[in-house]
Amino acid sequence: MKFGVGATREIGHELRTAGISSVLLVTDPLLAELGLPARVAKQIEQEGISVAVFDRARVEPTDESCAEAARELRSLQVDGFVGLGGGSSIDTAKMLNLLLTHPGRPVRDYLNAPIGAGSPIPGPLKPLVAIPTTAGSGSECTAMVALGVTGLNVKTGISDLRLLPTLALVDPVNTLTLPPAVTASSGYDVLTHACESYTARAYDRRPPYPTPGDRPLYIGANPISDVWAEQALDLVGRYLRRAVLNPDDLEARTGMSRAASFAGMGFGNAGTHIPHACAYPIAGLVRDYRPDGYQVDHAMVPHGAAVVSTAAAAFEFTYPTSPERHLRAAELLGANLAGVTEANGADVLPATLRSIVADTGGPAGPADFGYSTKDLPDLVEGALKQQRLLVCCPRDVAPHDLKRIIAGSMAA
Amino acid sequence: MKFGVGATREIGHELRTAGISSVLLVTDPLLAELGLPARVAKQIEQEGISVAVFDRARVEPTDESCAEAARELRSLQVDGFVGLGGGSSIDTAKMLNLLLTHPGRPVRDYLNAPIGAGSPIPGPLKPLVAIPTTAGSGSECTAMVALGVTGLNVKTGISDLRLLPTLALVDPVNTLTLPPAVTASSGYDVLTHACESYTARAYDRRPPYPTPGDRPLYIGANPISDVWAEQALDLVGRYLRRAVLNPDDLEARTGMSRAASFAGMGFGNAGTHIPHACAYPIAGLVRDYRPDGYQVDHAMVPHGAAVVSTAAAAFEFTYPTSPERHLRAAELLGANLAGVTEANGADVLPATLRSIVADTGGPAGPADFGYSTKDLPDLVEGALKQQRLLVCCPRDVAPHDLKRIIAGSMAA
Repeated sequence: MKFGVGATREIGHELRTAGISSVLLVTDPLLAELGLPARVAKQIEQEGISVAVFDRARVEPTDESCAEAARELRSLQVDGFVGLGGGSSIDTAKMLNLLLTHPGRPVRDYLNAPIGAGSPIPGPLKPLVAIPTTAGSGSECTAMVALGVTGLNVKTGISDLRLLPTLALVDPVNTLTLPPAVTASSGYDVLTHACESYTARAYDRRPPYPTPGDRPLYIGANPISDVWAEQALDLVGRYLRRAVLNPDDLEARTGMSRAASFAGMGFGNAGTHIPHACAYPIAGLVRDYRPDGYQVDHAMVPHGAAVVSTAAAAFEFTYPTSPERHLRAAELLGANLAGVTEANGADVLPATLRSIVADTGGPAGPADFGYSTKDLPDLVEGALKQQRLLVCCPRDVAPHDLKRIIAGSMAA
Repeated sequence: MKFGVGATREIGHELRTAGISSVLLVTDPLLAELGLPARVAKQIEQEGISVAVFDRARVEPTDESCAEAARELRSLQVDGFVGLGGGSSIDTAKMLNLLLTHPGRPVRDYLNAPIGAGSPIPGPLKPLVAIPTTAGSGSECTAMVALGVTGLNVKTGISDLRLLPTLALVDPVNTLTLPPAVTASSGYDVLTHACESYTARAYDRRPPYPTPGDRPLYIGANPISDVWAEQALDLVGRYLRRAVLNPDDLEARTGMSRAASFAGMGFGNAGTHIPHACAYPIAGLVRDYRPDGYQVDHAMVPHGAAVVSTAAAAFEFTYPTSPERHLRAAELLGANLAGVTEANGADVLPATLRSIVADTGGPAGPADFGYSTKDLPDLVEGALKQQRLLVCCPRDVAPHDLKRIIAGSMAA
């Protein structure tokens, strides 16, 4: 990773020294309108590298949006990829790298089981440089993509080490133009990545794997993911409110950009659990909700808003498995632990999360996106499909637990 | 990196899934005698991979020891390398990967300027898995090697991203048989890596580079190296004394193994400064010192012992550039800061270092290795050759500064 104000300018140098002569630059329509992709393309071309631009990455991409882009670009010959944008653009770039480098297999082959076949990627991918313009997904530092599945009203993902970008250029300047609602939602993703990976079932409290090859990408909380989660929590506590409430606060933007990548390095290794599992059906079953700040032509719940909408209730549920970690997370986020003990502290982290979300205009619960108690069975069923995430929960999660967590969040 | 008790056992799986069919296993004679290399070779062969063993890696390798090994092995055809041992074996494995993969160029072409030509490595290297058996150099996580230069009585190194191992298997069990003196010396290397990189001139307090390609591997202290340095300091403070004084304390061994890799990830990115610059002539000019715990047929100062022998005086010199960092480092190592202010705290870190070294049987100063004030001109001259390191010092270092630091350490 190269991190810092101005890091974007090093894109041409990096591609040239990697021996790349042509790239596909993947970005989204709104960003294209603002002009950054054209500036990045020019910097690349100045190094004698040819650039094709795909600027229609779907916000919250799907298997079908990626497959369609791949069909459209199937005759394109490039030897590298650049993903420029939020997690949606970077994930679409990762998918195009996969689908154009290894053509002929449907996306569902790769999607996590049980929704897809969970097949490993058959061979090396081409170099991919990620340039995030939000401080959210951490996709620039992870080996996964998150995708909606057309027709199933559910989101899932692909996890494979080959998806890890070759390089991330993380430039906080690129986040200065984000509208407050997008800053907030992206920040909630960071917040929950850090809280979930920090409280995930520890790597040494799982049954041994039959062979090293059976060990999943998400191995559970471990001493390295803990480092990144703690750093991210401290940064989110200091900077998320500031970045939302004063978009021009470059120090806060820098802190949040750092937090997003740090959280990505943490959860990408440890995993997430209940809030992410619930977020997938919350996003997938959306009817007509249109969020502020996003220019989209379809109903959509921003990923971070979906994730944070059940987080407080989820951490009440997991509290007994590691009170010290839940309290430490709250403290890093800014909570005052005076008088708090492990016996009386179950509500500290949930209250801290609710306070951050309330101060930054976030959702009170899934009801804000148009859901009601009538939707509980479908939401629970969708969350249960995310077994890959639920195994990372530090306690076993039954359907009635999920129902209680989602119902308890609904009108929160 | 794969870290944990038993990680060594995954070597066969890792090589097989990387598509490797033959490897050179590089280790040292003492370790070969103890039997670990034979066990590792067997685990690799069980996966159908052929193994050649080179078990004569020199403790504190030189340009000539590596060149000679490469000449001897020049007809060997392998598609991967395994470095098993301390920094000396892992660095020799890195060098053999370089010299056998790109034959025909002398080692000095690659050595850091001004001693060598500092030429970049001309192309990709083969996969290399590092399995450390000491908790010291962090070589398993760095993109460099340290080498003595035959005939010049000086040590220097090669820094190139291509030298970064493909994978590190860090298994604390492998360190259980280290004699206390080797545990101590290895630990001093970790301690100084962390202190030096944490206090190095910050990446954003250096003049801008003409192009991104001019930026060295050692970019100075930065938010990511700081994380690793802080973690390493905390672990060394907790576990170094325990690991030296009770070799069978697996918890302490685990802490020190983690500390070594974490410090490697820190300094490998940020750099080291005065103690490492002074250590190179202290090791290079040695006359007849034979350390406890090492079975060597030549005079030698263990790298960690050499490095720590000037550390206290060096951090007195750098204290005014960042009192808060020097105090924080001391606190993480266990110092009591009650009553300490930035104005009165210059001796806190030096005293903390002296206490750790004294408790673990380390050197009081370079005089312990046979040096006297008569050697000061040569030692200063040798240290001045390490400009690559001295530019990382947070204040400019004149020859008389080095003389004062080494003289002040001599009989300390």
